[in-house]
Amino acid sequence: MSVIRNILNSRPSKGGNFFNTLYKILGFKPKNLSHYKKAFTHRSLNKKDEEGNAINFERMEFLGDAMLSAVIASHLFKAVPGGNEGYLTKMRSKVVSRKHLNELGKDLNLIAHVQTNIPKEQFGVNIHGNLFEALIGAIYLDRGYKYCRKFIFDRVIDPYVDIEQLEGKVISYKSLLIEWCQKEKKEFNYEVYEDTGNDELKHFAVKLRIDDRVVAKARATSKKKAEEKASKRAYYALQSKIE
Amino acid sequence: MSVIRNILNSRPSKGGNFFNTLYKILGFKPKNLSHYKKAFTHRSLNKKDEEGNAINFERMEFLGDAMLSAVIASHLFKAVPGGNEGYLTKMRSKVVSRKHLNELGKDLNLIAHVQTNIPKEQFGVNIHGNLFEALIGAIYLDRGYKYCRKFIFDRVIDPYVDIEQLEGKVISYKSLLIEWCQKEKKEFNYEVYEDTGNDELKHFAVKLRIDDRVVAKARATSKKKAEEKASKRAYYALQSKIE
Repeated sequence: MSVIRNILNSRPSKGGNFFNTLYKILGFKPKNLSHYKKAFTHRSLNKKDEEGNAINFERMEFLGDAMLSAVIASHLFKAVPGGNEGYLTKMRSKVVSRKHLNELGKDLNLIAHVQTNIPKEQFGVNIHGNLFEALIGAIYLDRGYKYCRKFIFDRVIDPYVDIEQLEGKVISYKSLLIEWCQKEKKEFNYEVYEDTGNDELKHFAVKLRIDDRVVAKARATSKKKAEEKASKRAYYALQSKIE
Repeated sequence: MSVIRNILNSRPSKGGNFFNTLYKILGFKPKNLSHYKKAFTHRSLNKKDEEGNAINFERMEFLGDAMLSAVIASHLFKAVPGGNEGYLTKMRSKVVSRKHLNELGKDLNLIAHVQTNIPKEQFGVNIHGNLFEALIGAIYLDRGYKYCRKFIFDRVIDPYVDIEQLEGKVISYKSLLIEWCQKEKKEFNYEVYEDTGNDELKHFAVKLRIDDRVVAKARATSKKKAEEKASKRAYYALQSKIE
C-alpha cells in the first residue's frame, strides 16, 4: 500500500502539494513554508497576524527587491571588471527592469499559486514581477543570503544575464545567425516542439539545422527563449568559421 | 626580544600597520587586504591592473551601496512587522541618506587612510560616505555577506537605527529630557570629557546628572552622540517616573 501511496504522491497534482511545487520552482528544499505562503498571499484575503499586522506579499517585495539588487550588483561587479559605477548601475537596472521581472515571474507561472479573493484576471500587469520579488524575499527569510543568491543565479543570471546582449552589442543571437546564413547562402531551420517532460512548467525544445545538419539544440520555457539559446550555442560553435 | 617586539607592535602608529588599522575599524580580522587597499585608493593615483582596468574605490561604492541597502532592508522588514512597502522604503532612505553615510564615514575617520595624489582638502563633501560604502564593498568581497551584515549591524544599525527617531516620533532624547527636567523643576547637567583610551578614533564620555545625581553615562565618537546616548538611557530609566 505504501508503495502505491508513494507513487501517487511522487507527482502531485498542481497546487496539491505546496512543498513539492516550491521544490520544483526553487530547485532546493524549502524549510519554513510559512514565508512562502505569505509570498503567495494577496491582500484581498485581508489576512492579519495576532498583532493585527497585514499578511500579504507586498512587504516581501521590498525585501526581495533589495536582495535581488545586491546579488545582481555583486555579479556585475565581478563579471565586468572594466565597468565603472555608472555602467554597473545602468546594467543592473536593465536586469531588474519591471519588464524583465514580469517575464521571470511569468515563466515560473507563480500566479498559479496565489491565494486571492479577487479574480486573477483583475491583477495588474506587474503581478508576475511582484510575485517573483516576494518569492526572493521568502527565500531570504527561509534559507538566508546563500540560497537567495543561488536561486537568483539559477533563475536570472545564468539563463538571462548576457553582458554583451545587455550592452546592446548583440541584440539577438537569432538575428545574428540568420544574417550570417543569408550572407553565406546557407539554408537554416528551427524545429520547435513542446517538451515539458516531468517539469511543472511548460517547456519547448528546439533543433537548429543549418544545411540540414543539426548544429545546436536547446530547451527553455518559451519558444522564443529556446530559439535564442540554440542560436547562441550555434553562434559560438560557428565563431571560428564566421571570423 | 620577541616580547618587546610584541609590545611595540601591539599599538602601531596611525597608518603604520594597515591590518591593525582595519581590524580596529572592522571589529574583525580582514583576510585579503587587496580589497581594502582598493577601497582606499583615490582615482587621482591613476592605478590600473594588468588588463588596464582602473583601480580605485568608485566601483566599490556601487557594491557597498547595494549590500548596505539589502542589510538595512532585511533589518527594517523584521524590526517593523507593521510597516508596509512604502513605509519600509521611506525608512531605509533615511538610514542610507548621503548625510548619514557621510557622518558614519567621518566617525570612522576613513579619510585618514586614503591614498591620493591630490590634497585631501580638495575632496568633495561626500568623500566620507563614499569611502564608507566602498569599505562595505571590500568587506563583502573579503568575508562575504555574513561579515558585511555584522559590520553594518555594529556600525550602523545598533548605534544609529532607532525606529522611533526615524519615524520622527522622537526628534532628540536630549530635548525630551530637558523638557521633562524643566517641567519637573529639576537641575540637569551634561559633563562631557574626552575619553579616547586605546581607541584609534577620538571618543567622548558623558555623565548626565539630574539634581546632582549621575543618572546615565555614555561614550561615543562625538559630543553630540554621547549626549544623545546618555539622554536616551536616562529617558528609558526614568520612564516609570515620567509616566
